[in-house]
Amino acid sequence: MKLASLKSGRDGRLVVVSDDLAWCADATAIAPTLQRALDEWERCEAPLRALAAALNRGDAPRSPFSEAECASPLPRAYQWADGSAYVNHVALVRKARKAEMPESFWSDPLMYQGGSDGFLGPREPIPLADESWGCDLEGEVAVITGDVRQGATREEALKAIRLVMLVNDVSLRNLIPGELAKGFGFFQSKPASSFSPVAVTPDELGGAWREGKLHGALRVSLNGEPFGRADAGVDMTFDFGTLVAHAAKTRDLCAGTIIGSGTVSNRDADGGPGKPIRDGGLGYSCIAEVRTVETLLAGAPKTPFLRHGDRVRIEMQDAAGRSLFGAIEQTVAAPRR
Amino acid sequence: MKLASLKSGRDGRLVVVSDDLAWCADATAIAPTLQRALDEWERCEAPLRALAAALNRGDAPRSPFSEAECASPLPRAYQWADGSAYVNHVALVRKARKAEMPESFWSDPLMYQGGSDGFLGPREPIPLADESWGCDLEGEVAVITGDVRQGATREEALKAIRLVMLVNDVSLRNLIPGELAKGFGFFQSKPASSFSPVAVTPDELGGAWREGKLHGALRVSLNGEPFGRADAGVDMTFDFGTLVAHAAKTRDLCAGTIIGSGTVSNRDADGGPGKPIRDGGLGYSCIAEVRTVETLLAGAPKTPFLRHGDRVRIEMQDAAGRSLFGAIEQTVAAPRR
Repeated sequence: MKLASLKSGRDGRLVVVSDDLAWCADATAIAPTLQRALDEWERCEAPLRALAAALNRGDAPRSPFSEAECASPLPRAYQWADGSAYVNHVALVRKARKAEMPESFWSDPLMYQGGSDGFLGPREPIPLADESWGCDLEGEVAVITGDVRQGATREEALKAIRLVMLVNDVSLRNLIPGELAKGFGFFQSKPASSFSPVAVTPDELGGAWREGKLHGALRVSLNGEPFGRADAGVDMTFDFGTLVAHAAKTRDLCAGTIIGSGTVSNRDADGGPGKPIRDGGLGYSCIAEVRTVETLLAGAPKTPFLRHGDRVRIEMQDAAGRSLFGAIEQTVAAPRR
Repeated sequence: MKLASLKSGRDGRLVVVSDDLAWCADATAIAPTLQRALDEWERCEAPLRALAAALNRGDAPRSPFSEAECASPLPRAYQWADGSAYVNHVALVRKARKAEMPESFWSDPLMYQGGSDGFLGPREPIPLADESWGCDLEGEVAVITGDVRQGATREEALKAIRLVMLVNDVSLRNLIPGELAKGFGFFQSKPASSFSPVAVTPDELGGAWREGKLHGALRVSLNGEPFGRADAGVDMTFDFGTLVAHAAKTRDLCAGTIIGSGTVSNRDADGGPGKPIRDGGLGYSCIAEVRTVETLLAGAPKTPFLRHGDRVRIEMQDAAGRSLFGAIEQTVAAPRR
């Protein structure tokens, strides 16, 4: 089953989307918003699935589905917490710059509490007041959970995963060092993120969802050029069950909690940091990573951070080349006042 | 105007509360929940104020108000971000242990993104799975904002403050060092917080709300004994306007955003760290602070962190001794499974 929120008010209007993303059916008679559907999943799941089946058969009242009319699946959420599950990358980069990485990073997930009070729509501009902040994209995978009780096991956490989607976790790189030095984590350096137009139930993903991971190339483009093709199922040290259980160690998680994977990253075939796509590599899911590689190879970063007018696209396709979640496609722009 | 959310479903049921906290009037005909009232403040404010005025005159249908029936004013929220505005305390403690505090702490607020997907009710137990985590209370003040645009000034931020309340920001002290060492801030070390039964508009607080600060003694008790009486309006380096503007520097804030002051703390009259109440001081708003003082004076902390069965109470009174926000009163307990 595929779900989306068309722009409407603060929380959107719930629709079921056809598997090929061509059509959608109004689902507000079942639940007006996705949050409500998650709040009352036991009541809503069966009728939503029945509506999806009818839509895919051509048996339900339908409208053409437009990704441009979508808000993020949860336009605002009660929780957004982002892990750093691609530890290989962290280890490689640190090794390359001769910095130690604590051994515990391999067994204890890194996770930060993100702002969740307002997400950008998947086709909305990224409002950037100051280019010197060093705006970066981060291509990631995220899940939306049902209620998770404090102390849930990995297996319980996996069962609580309701939906899977893609993320652009916008980061302001030049604000990060000062903020992390203060010791309390990210705040101003993590402005509003955006999510793919469509959120998909794990069963709908078939073999691409296994062992608590989404498998497939995360297709990241920058100004129309291929930038990253890393496989989200490769080099992911902590699966989503482990990440959700980590988040629930000391407290319950409310239905509608979004947990992210951190920036998707694959090691190169030779074990080193990834090469650019034009050099036959899998590229990168954020600019900071290519800048690190450039610094290692040439002594200084070359690729600039995002500027007004730059375009970012993040997508994943199935084996037949069909978009699974729709595309995040955003242009960086000055904020509207 | 005083507002509260009686326990009901996930988001409570909005009531207006009389100034003396004796009575409440159902406000669901205006807005079913406090979040909805904040989402539609322009529509809701006037009728809510009219209902409050009628209730205080004895002219509205009313029920006895019970703090025990309250959820937190926002039982779950889209954002909870907590500052550390009482910098004097941070500076004193660091000086006492001969550690440097960056000069920037006096001009650039510390703030962390907290979990907001579920708050404890003001009279609900604090569910603590493991006493060795070092559970602490933190008595604080918090505000709830309306919508705040990215880049808002302090003055704009002050105008966006809709409500004021008290907080118990529960912390797991023994999980903090490991978590902060990872560099991404708090997560497992900050389980669900709780808020006072009643949230109050700034105008209702009269002279106790001035210069963006709440003035008055924060009355913290531990197992029935006075533990803290620090004045929330004293030694607060950053007022709430500054804290809200800090939060909004790189992104919009959604209506219903909760911004906290950090643990209230006053310097002693002699400029040193505060003394216990039994020694004539103003005491403490968290256990970590008294443990620091004990370590300074006697080489080791003496006061234990919270254990199952311990009782915490946090309240503020007006000049006549009447409770302004109702009391947070919680017992630490093993989580229900």
